[in-house]
Amino acid sequence: MDRQIPHFQEQLATLKERLLVMGGMSEERVRLSVQALVEGDPVLVEEVLAGDTPINVLHIEIDDRCLKLLALHQPMAVDLRAIVAAVKINTDLERVGDLAVNIAEAARRYATHPPVKKLIDIPRMATIAQQMLRDSLDAFVRRDVDLAQQVLNQDDILDGLKTQVFRELLTYMLQDPATIEPALDLILISRHLERIGDHATNVGEDVIFMVSGVDVRHHAGDSEIGTSHA
Amino acid sequence: MDRQIPHFQEQLATLKERLLVMGGMSEERVRLSVQALVEGDPVLVEEVLAGDTPINVLHIEIDDRCLKLLALHQPMAVDLRAIVAAVKINTDLERVGDLAVNIAEAARRYATHPPVKKLIDIPRMATIAQQMLRDSLDAFVRRDVDLAQQVLNQDDILDGLKTQVFRELLTYMLQDPATIEPALDLILISRHLERIGDHATNVGEDVIFMVSGVDVRHHAGDSEIGTSHA
Repeated sequence: MDRQIPHFQEQLATLKERLLVMGGMSEERVRLSVQALVEGDPVLVEEVLAGDTPINVLHIEIDDRCLKLLALHQPMAVDLRAIVAAVKINTDLERVGDLAVNIAEAARRYATHPPVKKLIDIPRMATIAQQMLRDSLDAFVRRDVDLAQQVLNQDDILDGLKTQVFRELLTYMLQDPATIEPALDLILISRHLERIGDHATNVGEDVIFMVSGVDVRHHAGDSEIGTSHA
Repeated sequence: MDRQIPHFQEQLATLKERLLVMGGMSEERVRLSVQALVEGDPVLVEEVLAGDTPINVLHIEIDDRCLKLLALHQPMAVDLRAIVAAVKINTDLERVGDLAVNIAEAARRYATHPPVKKLIDIPRMATIAQQMLRDSLDAFVRRDVDLAQQVLNQDDILDGLKTQVFRELLTYMLQDPATIEPALDLILISRHLERIGDHATNVGEDVIFMVSGVDVRHHAGDSEIGTSHA
């Protein structure tokens, strides 16, 4: 590490801060999109639809920070893995922002029909997905493998809720064709939330690899990768 | 470039070759999953469901190659951007493999019901998505910005087909509740194919940025990023 330019650690810390800001933004947009759905609030729907720009600008800024850190310094081992992880996490968070837009689009259509049912599981899915995002980013910044593992475990709960939502809505659709269109939107929203959980899971996996050099994706088990130059 | 270790360009060429193999695998799995759907072939469905391992292994291998290239060499400008692009493209291709699994899962459920209709638009979507994958990878290897731009243009066609599929299936569902479950699976499959197109679009955008240093994501326009160290 001693042959690195002095400001490297400072710049790496700034990169992490900016990723936290990006994580906070994307989490907030998920929260607002589901709030817009639950409250049937057309103003909030349009706010979410129109508000993607700050995340997109930050996405480009963070990518640029990563490239500059790689170009100007020669990070090794865990620092190198942290920057490559940041590139991936940045992409995941940007997609979460896109999914919030998709939820808002479905919420807008949903509001044009009588509500199918009181929404309970979908807000619960959103709460879990938001928590997963927050924890995965905290795990990244604190290099906390245990917290990252907790995020991976939460994903099963989200998948279970998605299946439950699907089955329940299918019953409504079969009983009353008038519910088909709005129920379809709720099914799509539950899948968007599941995918947000998948993105948080990706971040958790990246954190575990970054810290340990052990790839937990695809049950790769105990193979050590990217650590040979440590 | 002259301060780079001699074998760098050779290793970069190997990285590109491996990404092409990964692209070919993911494209083939998309093709097989939709063939399994169209032919209602349960053996082929199971083949796709069970066949994710080679892509996952290659995913880890390519990530490792990228980290080693970054750690052992000090790639600058377009070479640095190429390796960072490879990290992202690798992730996109792995997700395409996951989506082929999702299509096969839906195809398995679809085969348990009488077919809703003769499938025309979904195989067409698959053909377009596969072509987009192929072109985006070719564009990466050949650093061909025009071809990458063509991929971006194709995405609108895919989105249009997805909307068309949705409207048509909604009509079936409203007319005959017996079609609701299988039609839902076709709607999900069309969305998986649209997402495969999105991944190819991501690759196209990465290629344009890699070659030109100009970020075309989020209509970032003519801002130049990551070129300041060229």
